[in-house]
Amino acid sequence: MTFGQPRNRLLLNCDMGESFGPWTMGRDEDVMPLVDLANIACGFHASDPVTMTRTVLLAKQAGVDIGAHPSYPDLQGFGRRSMQCSPLEIVALAHYQIGALAGIAKVHGMALSHVKPHGALYNDMMRHESVLRAVLEAVATYDASLPLMVLATADNEAVGTVADEFGVRLWFEAFADRAYDEQGFLVPRSVPGAVHNDPEVIVAQALSLATSGQVQTLEGKTLTLDATTLCVHGDNDDSVRSVRRIRDALDGWYQEN
Amino acid sequence: MTFGQPRNRLLLNCDMGESFGPWTMGRDEDVMPLVDLANIACGFHASDPVTMTRTVLLAKQAGVDIGAHPSYPDLQGFGRRSMQCSPLEIVALAHYQIGALAGIAKVHGMALSHVKPHGALYNDMMRHESVLRAVLEAVATYDASLPLMVLATADNEAVGTVADEFGVRLWFEAFADRAYDEQGFLVPRSVPGAVHNDPEVIVAQALSLATSGQVQTLEGKTLTLDATTLCVHGDNDDSVRSVRRIRDALDGWYQEN
Amino acid sequence: MTFGQPRNRLLLNCDMGESFGPWTMGRDEDVMPLVDLANIACGFHASDPVTMTRTVLLAKQAGVDIGAHPSYPDLQGFGRRSMQCSPLEIVALAHYQIGALAGIAKVHGMALSHVKPHGALYNDMMRHESVLRAVLEAVATYDASLPLMVLATADNEAVGTVADEFGVRLWFEAFADRAYDEQGFLVPRSVPGAVHNDPEVIVAQALSLATSGQVQTLEGKTLTLDATTLCVHGDNDDSVRSVRRIRDALDGWYQEN
Amino acid sequence: MTFGQPRNRLLLNCDMGESFGPWTMGRDEDVMPLVDLANIACGFHASDPVTMTRTVLLAKQAGVDIGAHPSYPDLQGFGRRSMQCSPLEIVALAHYQIGALAGIAKVHGMALSHVKPHGALYNDMMRHESVLRAVLEAVATYDASLPLMVLATADNEAVGTVADEFGVRLWFEAFADRAYDEQGFLVPRSVPGAVHNDPEVIVAQALSLATSGQVQTLEGKTLTLDATTLCVHGDNDDSVRSVRRIRDALDGWYQEN
Repeated sequence: MTFGQPRNRLLLNCDMGESFGPWTMGRDEDVMPLVDLANIACGFHASDPVTMTRTVLLAKQAGVDIGAHPSYPDLQGFGRRSMQCSPLEIVALAHYQIGALAGIAKVHGMALSHVKPHGALYNDMMRHESVLRAVLEAVATYDASLPLMVLATADNEAVGTVADEFGVRLWFEAFADRAYDEQGFLVPRSVPGAVHNDPEVIVAQALSLATSGQVQTLEGKTLTLDATTLCVHGDNDDSVRSVRRIRDALDGWYQEN
Repeated sequence: MTFGQPRNRLLLNCDMGESFGPWTMGRDEDVMPLVDLANIACGFHASDPVTMTRTVLLAKQAGVDIGAHPSYPDLQGFGRRSMQCSPLEIVALAHYQIGALAGIAKVHGMALSHVKPHGALYNDMMRHESVLRAVLEAVATYDASLPLMVLATADNEAVGTVADEFGVRLWFEAFADRAYDEQGFLVPRSVPGAVHNDPEVIVAQALSLATSGQVQTLEGKTLTLDATTLCVHGDNDDSVRSVRRIRDALDGWYQEN
Repeated sequence: MTFGQPRNRLLLNCDMGESFGPWTMGRDEDVMPLVDLANIACGFHASDPVTMTRTVLLAKQAGVDIGAHPSYPDLQGFGRRSMQCSPLEIVALAHYQIGALAGIAKVHGMALSHVKPHGALYNDMMRHESVLRAVLEAVATYDASLPLMVLATADNEAVGTVADEFGVRLWFEAFADRAYDEQGFLVPRSVPGAVHNDPEVIVAQALSLATSGQVQTLEGKTLTLDATTLCVHGDNDDSVRSVRRIRDALDGWYQEN
Repeated sequence: MTFGQPRNRLLLNCDMGESFGPWTMGRDEDVMPLVDLANIACGFHASDPVTMTRTVLLAKQAGVDIGAHPSYPDLQGFGRRSMQCSPLEIVALAHYQIGALAGIAKVHGMALSHVKPHGALYNDMMRHESVLRAVLEAVATYDASLPLMVLATADNEAVGTVADEFGVRLWFEAFADRAYDEQGFLVPRSVPGAVHNDPEVIVAQALSLATSGQVQTLEGKTLTLDATTLCVHGDNDDSVRSVRRIRDALDGWYQEN
């Protein structure tokens, strides 16, 4: 199994460009300067050509790497509803969306740095090997040098072994604001305690993931996650503040170490 | 003004990949081997990622060059309804669609050879300089070496002068099955005699355009069009037969001359 | 459990109005005069306002009853891909689509006679009680006097008991061109022998369903289905011919009996 | 010409239900109790079945009358881009959208009180008689007792005469936060002074329209508008505050007079 990044620097990634037409979502302008990687929606669950252009320019100004954030074709459901797409359909819709963003990026002198599936496609990829294989096939055939972002779990090998077949590097992402179960999967939002709201807890979990890879599970055990990147959110004032604190905490630690 | 092709060989182009989901349109498999250039729909007026993939592969097998065929976002209206899009919107939607097709093409070892706007976007580009400039801006910033296909008229200079500002080459297209007015514009379909149905007339007009650039106007005058390419259609059995006859007639003439 | 129709007359129903924008699907004009019930697509998997209008007028001329044929929102996938919609979403999308067709029908002096979910929504309804309940809730709250069309199986009671809770009548539909398994479910199309192509076999199965309710399963046993209506298809010349033969065979039998 | 309402009570109307999927727009919950008429988006420029359901319930709770707010099919452009739809297309898309909202309303014991076209469709209706006629045809054939909301101008007769042909009543709407020209048309937003931001000016214009129908034009003349209703906006805190002040001012005046 190959990793895209050395262990000693945890990159911050954030889903961006998720506005659509007249509707805005996310505090992209505030969050962009705080992260390393922007996963940009490609028009199937959010975004449109103008929004994508704007987001690419924002990333360029901030010196942030951009990745494609492809989704099932479901604007109304924001790509959060699982859709029974065939492997052929998944491969093609990924090529289409990656290409569309790459086209806009190219115009502005940018190139894609990675691919991160969105919402239900991301979840299905982690749960169903056929979906994972379709996504890997899409990345491998588009540009095998683009890392694919997947969920870091207690068993990264499970996904890594399949990715190796396709010659695709993986970037594993962890979360600072979510509780984990014993297998290193995220505790579903419906379970009490699944989402951390206390900024102290969030920053502590981020720092722990960055420095030792360790995270407390909801059941109280210690889990080690081998993560390349940390997913942060820029939905509102609170989450932007949270990202800033994580950024500062990580920068401080890396400077000292 | 620069032209993309030397005068002595009239290329056949055809709009393709205009099926959508379960709905098929066009006899792409029959027409593909007969043409030189396939203008492939990019999902805004027709096509979807799977259809685009299929169409790219078809072109590859037949050794046909592929171009992006971007449109206003109007599936229901097949991109035939003019939409008051701003220049910024037109630039961005063109980048998005060109990039999406280029992404799928790249996967299959193909690269784009040109851009031809579709339907109302094509018509608006010929009528409104602001739309023409937006389209040119899109092509120039995406890849200035891609020729833009526009309507050949009695005054190619009019469009050519603007294109020169953007450093974009033009491919001028003519029609074998449509009647022309004195300015070299197509007579609207609503006018009697606007569309040729007699295969003899169609083949004769194609040959004349290829060999002398001359075409009879509806009013009976002789018009000279400087055309790079001839637009053909593969809607049904009749039109496929027509394309085959045009192909044979042109091949025969070029062989002899 | 209540049935919408007496046993002694098997109604023919057909999915119609499944064209979209410039793309045509189905031989609606030929099939309409041959059936009793037209299930009209409502714009989410197929159709558009103009197509719906045209289809309603066609049904009116032929004296055919019309039903709403709502679907998941998935034009590209023709509503054939299961989507994880919540019960609230299913109820709302059904109300929307039923209302849209009812609005167009009202303009032309027609009223809806029934509701038949389409594609993946139909299949999910037969497999998952939560989806069935959402569909029933939608019909019951829109107009409890509208029958809901579901698949006739060996155990109509299973669905019927749930429908009774909502006070919604059911119309059970059977198929003349599909093979059945022991439980009265349709054999998946992927299984050899799942689809009957021989017109003799199709007409025989239609007649048997109409007169005795009996049908041979793929395994060779005899199954009894209590069906209100038979689903026929108007995709192409062959299927239209098949419908005509079924219509004639049934009319002949009813006249004699 | 017939008017839908007596002069002596100016109704407040507001466009609502303009969220879409995960994207929210408008402070519907705060504004609903302050207005008399809610124009509810029908899914073509904004809204979706769940949002429409929520908005209908909100109106029901507040005792507010609801109208259909149909649009060209352009989610990405929020229905603000003029589209060259044929009269047949306009009639059908209006029927579809009115029916869809009426279906959801019926479920919740509500009926539609009026129709107000949205954005570019509204503007086109005021500018092009063919569009006005198509909209009138749609309303007349759906339910001629539903008033159509149009822009109040210095010459209400112009539109009124056409509406009379169709037997459709008109509700004329005026604006408190926009400047008028001599003909009683709204000064385009691009012109300096076109939009009033001072709450005092807005409330004063509302009161003047309610009590005398008089409004100062941008050029300083006095114009009399015969308006049935005043259009208010609930985009943000400021606009909600503005609506509350208008409501209070009008209620105060009507109580005293």
